[in-house]
Amino acid sequence: MELIKFNYKDTALLDEGEVAEAASSLSGYIGHLNEVTKAGGYDSREASLNLPFDEDTLAKVKTLASAKKIDKLKYIVVVGIGGSNLGAMAVYEALFGTLHTVLDGEAPKMLFLDTNNPKLLLDIKNTLSGVEDKEELLINVISKSGGTTETIVNFEALYAYLKENIKGIEDRVVVTTDIGSKLYHKAEEVGFDILEVPKNVGGRFSVFSAVGLFPLALAGVNVEALVLGARKERDACLSEDLEKNPALASAVLIHLHHKHGISIQNSFFFHSQLETVGKWYRQLVGESLGKQHNKQGNEVRVGITPITSVGSTDLHSMAQLFLGGPKDKFTTFISAKTVEDKVLVPNKLVFDGLVDDISGKSFSDVMGAIYEGVKKAYEHNKIPYAEAVLPDLHETSLGQFLQFKMIEMMFLGELLNVNAFDQPNVEDYKKETKKLLSV
Amino acid sequence: MELIKFNYKDTALLDEGEVAEAASSLSGYIGHLNEVTKAGGYDSREASLNLPFDEDTLAKVKTLASAKKIDKLKYIVVVGIGGSNLGAMAVYEALFGTLHTVLDGEAPKMLFLDTNNPKLLLDIKNTLSGVEDKEELLINVISKSGGTTETIVNFEALYAYLKENIKGIEDRVVVTTDIGSKLYHKAEEVGFDILEVPKNVGGRFSVFSAVGLFPLALAGVNVEALVLGARKERDACLSEDLEKNPALASAVLIHLHHKHGISIQNSFFFHSQLETVGKWYRQLVGESLGKQHNKQGNEVRVGITPITSVGSTDLHSMAQLFLGGPKDKFTTFISAKTVEDKVLVPNKLVFDGLVDDISGKSFSDVMGAIYEGVKKAYEHNKIPYAEAVLPDLHETSLGQFLQFKMIEMMFLGELLNVNAFDQPNVEDYKKETKKLLSV
Repeated sequence: MELIKFNYKDTALLDEGEVAEAASSLSGYIGHLNEVTKAGGYDSREASLNLPFDEDTLAKVKTLASAKKIDKLKYIVVVGIGGSNLGAMAVYEALFGTLHTVLDGEAPKMLFLDTNNPKLLLDIKNTLSGVEDKEELLINVISKSGGTTETIVNFEALYAYLKENIKGIEDRVVVTTDIGSKLYHKAEEVGFDILEVPKNVGGRFSVFSAVGLFPLALAGVNVEALVLGARKERDACLSEDLEKNPALASAVLIHLHHKHGISIQNSFFFHSQLETVGKWYRQLVGESLGKQHNKQGNEVRVGITPITSVGSTDLHSMAQLFLGGPKDKFTTFISAKTVEDKVLVPNKLVFDGLVDDISGKSFSDVMGAIYEGVKKAYEHNKIPYAEAVLPDLHETSLGQFLQFKMIEMMFLGELLNVNAFDQPNVEDYKKETKKLLSV
Repeated sequence: MELIKFNYKDTALLDEGEVAEAASSLSGYIGHLNEVTKAGGYDSREASLNLPFDEDTLAKVKTLASAKKIDKLKYIVVVGIGGSNLGAMAVYEALFGTLHTVLDGEAPKMLFLDTNNPKLLLDIKNTLSGVEDKEELLINVISKSGGTTETIVNFEALYAYLKENIKGIEDRVVVTTDIGSKLYHKAEEVGFDILEVPKNVGGRFSVFSAVGLFPLALAGVNVEALVLGARKERDACLSEDLEKNPALASAVLIHLHHKHGISIQNSFFFHSQLETVGKWYRQLVGESLGKQHNKQGNEVRVGITPITSVGSTDLHSMAQLFLGGPKDKFTTFISAKTVEDKVLVPNKLVFDGLVDDISGKSFSDVMGAIYEGVKKAYEHNKIPYAEAVLPDLHETSLGQFLQFKMIEMMFLGELLNVNAFDQPNVEDYKKETKKLLSV
C-alpha cells in the first residue's frame, strides 16, 4: 500500500537541528503509544489507536448495515453534532463530492441533522415526505454521552413526524452511544438497535468506531479499506524515525512555529470535496489543543487556531492575505497524487484568446499548474509550508489521512504540555444554557 | 424598515474614549463617501456604494431574468469564482437553506461551478444529463476581467458537453463581465446575452451589481427588497453618529483590537444557512485588508484573519478553543431577531430524562438559550465580542447586512492605512501558474 508523502525539508523554514531535537523529545511518548497498541483494548486515553484493529466492532457494524441496507434504502439521516457526525460527513463528502444530494441514482443519500435549525429540520422533513416504505430510510442517532441537547431535540422532533407518517419506523432507528449511558438504556427500553462506543474514545477521535463506520457502511463506503489505511498509517506514525513518520514531523513543525509565534494552522486542501475533512480537523485541533490549563493545572491559555482553505476557490478569496499579509500562519497543503480525471478542456475554444495555454489540457493539468504556482509564490514570499500528498482520494488514503492527523494531535498535546483528550471549557456555556432552559 | 442592531457597549472590552476617538478620525472619510454617493455613478474606487441605487441595472437584470425564466427553468449554473459567485451563493443559501439542491419542487436549483475539480464538473454534467429542453437550463458565466482561468476552463468544458446534447443551448448563456473586456467582445461575437459590471466595482464589492442580482433574480429572489435593504443600510452607515452607524462602530472595534494585538476576526453566525455569508465576508476581509504595503508604499504586511463559525454546530468543535484558548480573537455574533419556526419539541419524549427542560419548546427557544449561554460564557471568560442582530432572514435584512459589511471594510482600509480595493499579491502565484501552463 502506498502511503502519504509528507514534504517539508526546504519549505517549512525551520532549523533542522531544532526539528530533530523536538522530535526526539517525543521518544518516550512514542514508546507509550506503542505499549498502548501492544496491549490493545480501550483502557488508556489514547484508546482510539486500537479502533482500526477492532474486528469485533467492524463485524457488528457490517452485520447491522447489511441487515438494514436493502436495495430500497434511499436516505440515511445522521442525527448528531461535532465528533458524532464530522468524521462520517468528511469521508462521505470526500468520496461522493459536494453535490451528492442533488445527483439522481447515487444512492443512498446521507443527510446530516446537527444543529437545531428549524429550516434544516423542515427541509429534511420535506425531503423525507415522499418516503412511504420504512425500508427507504434509516435514522442513526449518535451521542456518546447520550445527553447532547441538539441531538435529542432534533431526534424527538423528527421522530414524532416520522412516527405519524411511516409505519414501523421504529425498526429503522439505530442508536450509537457509550455503553451504559442513559441513552443506551432508553434505547434498550424502546427496542431500538444499538451500537456501542468505547468510553475512552472521545468524539473527535471516534471516526473509526461505530460512530463513523456504521453510517459510512450504510452509504456503501468500503469501510474495510478505510480501516486498512488507518492500520498502515498507525504503523508509520508510531515510528521514531522522523523520515518515516508524517505525524511526528507535522506535529513538530506546528509546535515549533507556534513556539516562534505562529498560532494559525492553515490546512489548504487542493480538492474541494475535502473541505469537510478540514472541518473534521478543525474540531480535532480546536478541542485537543485549545486549553486554559496545562497538564500541571496552571493557567496557560494555549491553543492553535485551525483554518481550512480550499484550492483553487480560496485563491480568489484568501490568497491576497496569505501572500501579502502578516506571516502568522503555517500552512499544510493537502493534495492527492492521482485523481480520476476524464475531463478535458476542448481543443477548439468558444472564448479563444482569453486564457493562454489551456486548450486540450486536463483539469488536473490546470490545477497542477495552479498548485505549483501557489507553492512557488509561498517560497518567493518566504512563507513556511509543508505538504501532504495522498496516494489518491479513495478509502485507504482517507483512512490514512485521518489516522495521521489523530496521532499528530496526540503528539501536539505532549509538545504543548496539555491534555489533548478533554474539553472542560465547553461546560462554561452549557451550564448557562441549562439555567436558561429551566426558567 | 427595521434596521440591524449592533450591540457592543459592555462586551467589546474597549475604552469608550478610545472608540470615540477612532470613530471621529474617520469623519473626513465619511465626508468623502457622502460626496461619492451624492455624485452617483461609478467614477471613484468606492463606486460600489452606488450600486443599490442603479435603477438602470436593476431594470436590465429584471428584464433579462424575465425573458430567460419561464416556468420550465430547473437549473441555473453559475460559472464563476471568488467575488464572481460568493455574493449570489451567500444570499441564495441564506434564503433557501443548505439542502436546497436535494429538495424537490423548490425550483430552480442553483449550481456553482467554481474551481477546476473534475469530479464537480462530472457531477454537474450528470445532474444536467436529464435536461432535454434548453429552457430548463441557464448558464451564467461571470468574470469581471474576462480572463479568469478556472472560469473559462470550466465554461469551455461544460459548454462543449451541453452543445452536443441540448439544441439551441447558445440562447441559454448569459455572460457577466466588465464593459469592453476581451470576454465582452468574444461574447458579442458569439451572440451570447451580456450583462455589464462597472469597472471600478471590484469582485468582492459586486453583489449588488448584475454579478449578484441576475442569478438571484432568476432563482426567484426578491432583488428589489435586497437592494432596498442595502439602500437603507447605506444611509445608516454613512452617518457620523457612532450610535446609529454599525459599520463605523464595527470597524473601529476590529481596528482597535487589531491595534492591541488581536488579529483574528471571528464571525459567529447563529443560523447555519448563513455559513456562506461568512465565506463571502471572508473574501471581503482577506482581500481588502491583507496587504504587503500601506498606502504610502512601505512594506507593512498587515492584515486581519477572518474565520467563520456556525452556532450551535461549532460549539461542538471550536468552543473549547474560543473559551479556553488564547485571547487572540474578536468575535461578532450574528443572529436574527425573528425566524420562522413552526418546529416544536414534542411534549411527550421518546428519550425522556436525558436532557432537562426541552419538551414542548420551540427550536428557537432552545437555540436562544444556547446563544445566551455562549454570550454569558464569553463574558465570564472576559473574551471580547459584539453582536449584530438582523431583523429577520429575508431579503431586506440580508441586503442590509452585506452593505453594512462592505462599508465596514472601506472604513477598515482607512483605519489600517491600506488600499482596500486592490489585490496585488494575487499576481504572485498567477504569474507562476502562467509560466507552468505554457510549458
